[in-house]
Amino acid sequence: MTTLLPSWNDGLAKQAILDFVAQVTAEPSPAFVPPGDRIAVFDNDGTLWCEYPMYVQAFFVFDRIRALAPQHPEWQIQAPFASVLKGDLNAALAGGEHALVELVMATHAGMTSDEFTAIVKDWLATAKHPTTQKLFTEMVYQPMLELLDYLRSHDFKTFIVSGGGIEFMRPWAERVYGIPPEQVIGSSIKTRFEQREGKPVIVRLPELLFFDDKEGKPAAIQHYIGRRPIAAFGNSDGDLQMLQWTTAGSGASLGLIVRHTDGDREFAYDTSAMGSLKQALIESEQQGWVVVGMQKDWNRIFAWQ
Amino acid sequence: MTTLLPSWNDGLAKQAILDFVAQVTAEPSPAFVPPGDRIAVFDNDGTLWCEYPMYVQAFFVFDRIRALAPQHPEWQIQAPFASVLKGDLNAALAGGEHALVELVMATHAGMTSDEFTAIVKDWLATAKHPTTQKLFTEMVYQPMLELLDYLRSHDFKTFIVSGGGIEFMRPWAERVYGIPPEQVIGSSIKTRFEQREGKPVIVRLPELLFFDDKEGKPAAIQHYIGRRPIAAFGNSDGDLQMLQWTTAGSGASLGLIVRHTDGDREFAYDTSAMGSLKQALIESEQQGWVVVGMQKDWNRIFAWQ
Repeated sequence: MTTLLPSWNDGLAKQAILDFVAQVTAEPSPAFVPPGDRIAVFDNDGTLWCEYPMYVQAFFVFDRIRALAPQHPEWQIQAPFASVLKGDLNAALAGGEHALVELVMATHAGMTSDEFTAIVKDWLATAKHPTTQKLFTEMVYQPMLELLDYLRSHDFKTFIVSGGGIEFMRPWAERVYGIPPEQVIGSSIKTRFEQREGKPVIVRLPELLFFDDKEGKPAAIQHYIGRRPIAAFGNSDGDLQMLQWTTAGSGASLGLIVRHTDGDREFAYDTSAMGSLKQALIESEQQGWVVVGMQKDWNRIFAWQ
Repeated sequence: MTTLLPSWNDGLAKQAILDFVAQVTAEPSPAFVPPGDRIAVFDNDGTLWCEYPMYVQAFFVFDRIRALAPQHPEWQIQAPFASVLKGDLNAALAGGEHALVELVMATHAGMTSDEFTAIVKDWLATAKHPTTQKLFTEMVYQPMLELLDYLRSHDFKTFIVSGGGIEFMRPWAERVYGIPPEQVIGSSIKTRFEQREGKPVIVRLPELLFFDDKEGKPAAIQHYIGRRPIAAFGNSDGDLQMLQWTTAGSGASLGLIVRHTDGDREFAYDTSAMGSLKQALIESEQQGWVVVGMQKDWNRIFAWQ
């Protein structure tokens, strides 16, 4: 057998990937796609790295609230901040989207873009996953890293299309995934260019610009990339429309869903506090999308295992 | 002398470009920049192609209004459409930004992204510049095409950062400039993903998402590219902030302004109906930006001359 994608077990999922790449890169082939059009889009949370028990960015938000609390005495009694400071994250999130937006804006806006990048880098240098005690950047899926490399070695351009914050991912996506900042797409807030003490800066404003999830994902793909991908990789219903859009093109395409089936080496869930995999799983059959079972299809999940 | 950049006369401007590229690409050099960080941003109208007597996209808007008029009998008496249909473009634009937005939305929204791309391609295949009777895609500056190639051959990644519509430029930017859709940044309207007769489409909505001019340019650069360019090329005060942001980085950088000084081979103006070059010219001295005079520095302006 092949030594390509070594962390993938031989089986239907791996074979589907190899067949697809062979099909679009071999010349002459009726399904040949020129290199420039070989666009592959990847969801991030739960597809490229662990999202359980909650998004890494949520851990970041809560840590930042605690770090900033001394400058905000009012947070001690003000929802949802007070719940975060008491360590009651369920209560903090009980306020729904409104509470979440408040927490995000309090921690993601008000500084310059350069300052925010530094904050993210500093935090990721030490913050650890609560169960494994590994750095979050070590909680990336080894088979997906191999897949990214494999696609790029066949002249695919790899993009992240995530509901997570665009500037939260960019400071480390190149080092960890080999994906440069300009190929990272995510949710975003508004910014303003201004001069501060004679130096131009870009200031982050507490107002949503774009929410890159569900219907937002194909819209973002068109907006940022400007052409339809031929391969899309996701793990939840938040990726459904991205998979639909990608695989509705006229040529060959690949849709793939990573399913969290391994409670021993990772976590076993279709539905978590972060989202669920229902409709995309139902559609996967009629659409011919590949469903990867982490337990069955991956012989290694994390590089350190 | 060198055969690089053959349409550029030997002189200060050409030398400044060659020196800058040598400085950031030679290893070891204190100013060395790794390939991934060699980001170059180009304004489009008036910098890469002709913007006189008005933006090409404005010609497109007026032609589309005339083409769509039979389906809109109300336009015969309704401003600003009636003025366009009478051929009185000054009167049409007298309504200022509000009138312009109305004209743009009536011609750029309501269709799917694929349909809009087809409309733009069809129009550009035949639409001609009123003075030269050349296709608009032949009204691109040969020295700038050479510069784009030269930078790319030294591992620069070239981007367009234009006030023009992002989806108006993408259908032809790769063919004409060698710049792929995902490296074209411009002004944009909102879109919505939906299913039409069981087929996913992206529908263009009549609402502004992002205006990519002046202060918007550095904000867009950070938003779409996520890192600071090391070279910026513009021709008007709409590019001032992009030049400021690019050249305020900590390493070596190049800011360059194309000045329209050739009334014989192109058009001679600092100020036109489309914009003006005043503040950027003033700042160019203290900032050390290169000012290119088209008459003095370019021995050829258009490939067909």
